Amino acid sequence: MTYCVGMMIDGGTLFMSDTRTNAGLDNISTFRKMRHWEAKGDRVITLMSAGNLATTQAVVSVLDERTKAHDEREPSLMGVPSMFQAARLIADTLRNVIANHNDAGQTASASFNATLIVGGQIKGGPQRLFLIYPEGNFIEACDDTPFFQIGEMKYGRPILVRAYDPAMTFEKAMRLMLVSFDSTLKANLTVGAPFDYHFYRKDSLCLGPSGRIELDDPRFMSISTGWGDALKSALESLPDFDADPE
Amino acid sequence: MTYCVGMMIDGGTLFMSDTRTNAGLDNISTFRKMRHWEAKGDRVITLMSAGNLATTQAVVSVLDERTKAHDEREPSLMGVPSMFQAARLIADTLRNVIANHNDAGQTASASFNATLIVGGQIKGGPQRLFLIYPEGNFIEACDDTPFFQIGEMKYGRPILVRAYDPAMTFEKAMRLMLVSFDSTLKANLTVGAPFDYHFYRKDSLCLGPSGRIELDDPRFMSISTGWGDALKSALESLPDFDADPE
Repeated sequence: MTYCVGMMIDGGTLFMSDTRTNAGLDNISTFRKMRHWEAKGDRVITLMSAGNLATTQAVVSVLDERTKAHDEREPSLMGVPSMFQAARLIADTLRNVIANHNDAGQTASASFNATLIVGGQIKGGPQRLFLIYPEGNFIEACDDTPFFQIGEMKYGRPILVRAYDPAMTFEKAMRLMLVSFDSTLKANLTVGAPFDYHFYRKDSLCLGPSGRIELDDPRFMSISTGWGDALKSALESLPDFDADPE
Repeated sequence: MTYCVGMMIDGGTLFMSDTRTNAGLDNISTFRKMRHWEAKGDRVITLMSAGNLATTQAVVSVLDERTKAHDEREPSLMGVPSMFQAARLIADTLRNVIANHNDAGQTASASFNATLIVGGQIKGGPQRLFLIYPEGNFIEACDDTPFFQIGEMKYGRPILVRAYDPAMTFEKAMRLMLVSFDSTLKANLTVGAPFDYHFYRKDSLCLGPSGRIELDDPRFMSISTGWGDALKSALESLPDFDADPE
């Protein structure tokens, strides 16, 4: 399993992904699930993936090769004129990769499916964020639904729903994201640290703050340990249940 | 779907269940998922169910009929000597009901499976809490894992994991439970109010406080609205993420 979140706030878009992949519970590995394409001053595109690792790696390789081949018959992520076209290109690539694998005859019990989050900005357009389904269609984030989760999304969702605020700074959005990841980590073995993050600053058209949070990162540890106490205090601030109301 | 939690605390066992059943998203109903068997001074057994409604209703009916028939060849919930035997009887009944339905040939896409939580106390033994699987085997709660959830358990789990404390009073356990149910309710349409609850007081051997919480119950509303603010305050109490640590 996997846990990735892409979240638009007023100041930009924050991406975070875990790094655990598993084929069964006794076969786990660490793989990067976040990729970037950047042309400074022109475009930044960030992609996160959940699902079959062979599929998602193939999608990234195909997209990468196209950006290098400069074959004009085949559009590339570095050439498409808008984020919508970028999403369409990635979605088509995903659908084709899955179709190729399925055509070859699926004999394993695993599915070749994958789900992607793609976001960023291309010069002349706004920052945008998309969720791409294995069928090759996609939806876009809006003010009502300003974030997307893929993978094991349930444990970490309530805090996002409750505490999301578009006016958050990058630092506060990271804090919220790490709480959501920590809740997921504590409940599901198939989601694991380290976590990769990237914050794209709106209209910057270049990569923003990014890095990797390890389990022993003091910033994560203070959030993880502090959150238990903070939650208990939050609960204490609510009224006790009154068993005998009049 | 469904959401039920059974939770042992020092003073007793708290049960809570939602009441929504659905066959597809456009066919929802309200059904009670919590049952009690009581013989004052001798035993109290509470059962909660998730899964196929025909199965769980049949299980309850079979168990009920046996308690009334007084047929000594067939053990009944009112006659078994221990909570372990009660769990075994319920588990066998569940397995038989599922096997009967499956034997008749399953032509629908739905599964006949169900999962149960059963808890309570029989004179001479301690209070106990079991989770029964559709296969007819079961596990028992212990100090390390003092609560069981069935149905749509993921959204409401992080708060239980973080805030559970065996020394909680009934009133504080209810508050925690309602927060967990509220988080689930906000995220999943297949879990719905009203919520039934029962608190069995340890060694009382009679039904304890019980009732039904409606969405417009002021006790639930104050917890539901207060929890959003309390969570935001909890988040504010954590340190901001430091993007440039030295």
